[in-house]
Amino acid sequence: MEEQDRKEIIENILYLINARDDAALSNIAIDTHPADLAGILPDLGDSARNYLFGLMDADTASRVITELDEVTREDLLNVVKSSRLIEIIDEMDSDDAADVVAELPVHMQKQVLANIEPQDRVEVEKLLHFEEDTAGGIMALEFIAVYEDETVDDAIREIRQRAEEIDEVFYVYAIDRGGRLTGVVPIKSLFLRNPRRIIRDIMHKDVISVTVDMDQEQVANIVRKYDLSAVPVVDKYERLVGRITIDDVVDVLQEEANEDIQRMAGISDEEILQETSTFRITRNRLPWLIIAFLGQLMAAMVLSRFEITLTEIAALTFFIPVIMAMGGNVGIQSSTIVVRSIALNEAGAMGLWDRFSRELRVAMLNGFLIGVLLALVIIFIWPNIENRPILGSIIGFAMMLVIINSAVFGSIIPFVLNKLRFDPAIATGPFITTSNDVLGLLIYLSLATFYLKNLR
Amino acid sequence: MEEQDRKEIIENILYLINARDDAALSNIAIDTHPADLAGILPDLGDSARNYLFGLMDADTASRVITELDEVTREDLLNVVKSSRLIEIIDEMDSDDAADVVAELPVHMQKQVLANIEPQDRVEVEKLLHFEEDTAGGIMALEFIAVYEDETVDDAIREIRQRAEEIDEVFYVYAIDRGGRLTGVVPIKSLFLRNPRRIIRDIMHKDVISVTVDMDQEQVANIVRKYDLSAVPVVDKYERLVGRITIDDVVDVLQEEANEDIQRMAGISDEEILQETSTFRITRNRLPWLIIAFLGQLMAAMVLSRFEITLTEIAALTFFIPVIMAMGGNVGIQSSTIVVRSIALNEAGAMGLWDRFSRELRVAMLNGFLIGVLLALVIIFIWPNIENRPILGSIIGFAMMLVIINSAVFGSIIPFVLNKLRFDPAIATGPFITTSNDVLGLLIYLSLATFYLKNLR
Repeated sequence: MEEQDRKEIIENILYLINARDDAALSNIAIDTHPADLAGILPDLGDSARNYLFGLMDADTASRVITELDEVTREDLLNVVKSSRLIEIIDEMDSDDAADVVAELPVHMQKQVLANIEPQDRVEVEKLLHFEEDTAGGIMALEFIAVYEDETVDDAIREIRQRAEEIDEVFYVYAIDRGGRLTGVVPIKSLFLRNPRRIIRDIMHKDVISVTVDMDQEQVANIVRKYDLSAVPVVDKYERLVGRITIDDVVDVLQEEANEDIQRMAGISDEEILQETSTFRITRNRLPWLIIAFLGQLMAAMVLSRFEITLTEIAALTFFIPVIMAMGGNVGIQSSTIVVRSIALNEAGAMGLWDRFSRELRVAMLNGFLIGVLLALVIIFIWPNIENRPILGSIIGFAMMLVIINSAVFGSIIPFVLNKLRFDPAIATGPFITTSNDVLGLLIYLSLATFYLKNLR
Repeated sequence: MEEQDRKEIIENILYLINARDDAALSNIAIDTHPADLAGILPDLGDSARNYLFGLMDADTASRVITELDEVTREDLLNVVKSSRLIEIIDEMDSDDAADVVAELPVHMQKQVLANIEPQDRVEVEKLLHFEEDTAGGIMALEFIAVYEDETVDDAIREIRQRAEEIDEVFYVYAIDRGGRLTGVVPIKSLFLRNPRRIIRDIMHKDVISVTVDMDQEQVANIVRKYDLSAVPVVDKYERLVGRITIDDVVDVLQEEANEDIQRMAGISDEEILQETSTFRITRNRLPWLIIAFLGQLMAAMVLSRFEITLTEIAALTFFIPVIMAMGGNVGIQSSTIVVRSIALNEAGAMGLWDRFSRELRVAMLNGFLIGVLLALVIIFIWPNIENRPILGSIIGFAMMLVIINSAVFGSIIPFVLNKLRFDPAIATGPFITTSNDVLGLLIYLSLATFYLKNLR
């Protein structure tokens, strides 16, 4: 939906709510795609939002809830009556229902679970046991499975019986009499085969599956790598227990990319883009700022230790920003590349040492070029400096060392963090920049002091 | 595939190549998933890689080529004979074939196009016309379409005829006699309906489609938003011309996230993680470093303009790193959030002004807290400073202003870049950090000079 259309619909809705034209509003709710409604609700204001939501039929409402951003969803769930909520949840797939129930306050959870359809209740309770960010936490219980000794015709009958309840059917899974996953049949194959053929004889036996406790990021990487449209989930006895469709995997990939990007920027936890509370946002960002702040006090201490050098050659102060910034930039370039290779699971393709030596070579080239550039600027262009040739060479050389140091640090730290089972993405944020600042200033001023003492 | 298994298979392969045990190698090539083979080839070394690739049947080879990283693929395509390449391309889907052909040197392109199957040739040539990063550039021509006045039985017959050639069939598209897309039928529905029913009566008429010239990022956002498994592509006359499956969309999302992350880190173009050439990597990174370098020379100029102030109060120099770094960190936090909302198309849900005022509020709170913290450190803890209370207050106040300034700058620049049709992601890299450094130092030293002149 185009931004223009969206604005028009919003105006329209607000007008119709004022006019209490419920019939027209209901039509809009029916004609507009639930995903678009979910994009409109956050902009309506509380009372209009609740009013429009109240006019939606349970099926539409369930789809809208599933698509809503977390902040608006929480607001809505806080005001909707539990009888209505029960109707809405009854319409959902098991995975979406479990997500919504998990977000409810405890007393609402109990009330909802006690009143939804018994089968849904069993399913939701089963799903609530799994960690949110594992295969179990994102899988749905709606899938088509047949015994491997059944026929194509049995599979078609199973699809007919359950098609209403299951939105997307792309594969039929084959299980043995112990419930273990043994194969997969793409749904199109059912059209190609004699209805009396046995599933075991037509199924793909090398079916790719994930285990119920696998981390969702790993699940996403598998689905991405093997270009799957859905992946079956098995328990530790290899029994088929659920399936994950690729649209949920897309959400996971988006979430993980967001998380990486935000961590790189020094924002802990994932900050929800629709979040409006100043305090909640500050809580996510301040800790990193404080860490960087304390680190930079160390940088200040380094500078105060070199006070004499700095007073003797005032020009040294001028180049503090360029030394800090270039070290910071190079460190972020190196660590970003390393963090991405780890996240995309592509570190294997290029071993630790290869990647490190690659960063080192690039840093030596960049460091040399920028070091020479800085030396030339100081020697030939910068006004009012004494001992240009020597000072320029010293500062340029320091620049090169600082760049190399930053690249080394920036590419090693993510590997170390990964080994220690921290998310390497935090390395690319304020953490690495601050360390590089302190080390960079130390290198820079030590060299300058050495020059003062020995060369002058 | 686990890292352990991967290493074992690699050892195995190298051993078998030495022993020239082609039969065993062929078995490995058949038993291993093409995506896993694609993960192994980059680590084999040139001659072993070419040898193993030469033993694969054309179908496996075509899948491996499709999954390979760009660097290894280019290496392989450079050594494979054109007769073999033609066999391999004949096995591919039209979109993958077009991608490979597009990468070939011109003389190879001609030779390959002249010798692949005539129908493939027409398809590949059609696809080569589209820009690489548009819907046309990523769509495939393999899809199932029937006229809307045909029956369910006709659709099933069409699937039977074309199932061999089309890997994944999830939807049947309905077109009118002019070829215009008019509806969609999920393949499972074909099982539920009387074979004699007319497609028009059972199809979903509100089918979501994309146009052939739409940017791939927009396509990905639509597929993600509406949870589609495949999306049909239409030309400007609304005629159905192709389809995009979600596994290709996943690749686009990954590519775009990578691009954003790398641009944030000041790496122009997408740096391929497997790239090994020091010069090619440097070419991607050096331009940003030079821009930052020139910007920091401005910072050096600012400092030299304030030389007198800095000599009079040496302590001012010590806090240059903390002022620069905090401004930089806050600027990156704000710009990252704004860039992500623009990229995920979620800026609409929270208007420009809302987002800006949100960042301003957060910055005022963070700025106040960190400013006070810095003032307290200077007043009560820092050794050897004169006029502590006043100097501490001035520097703390400057800290607050610098943080607010960085947040304002960091959140406005991405919007401006987006309006000017630049990628806002470049704003979060060295560009914004450098501007914030220069502005921050100006604010800091101006305040300090004002204090020297007026308050002492």
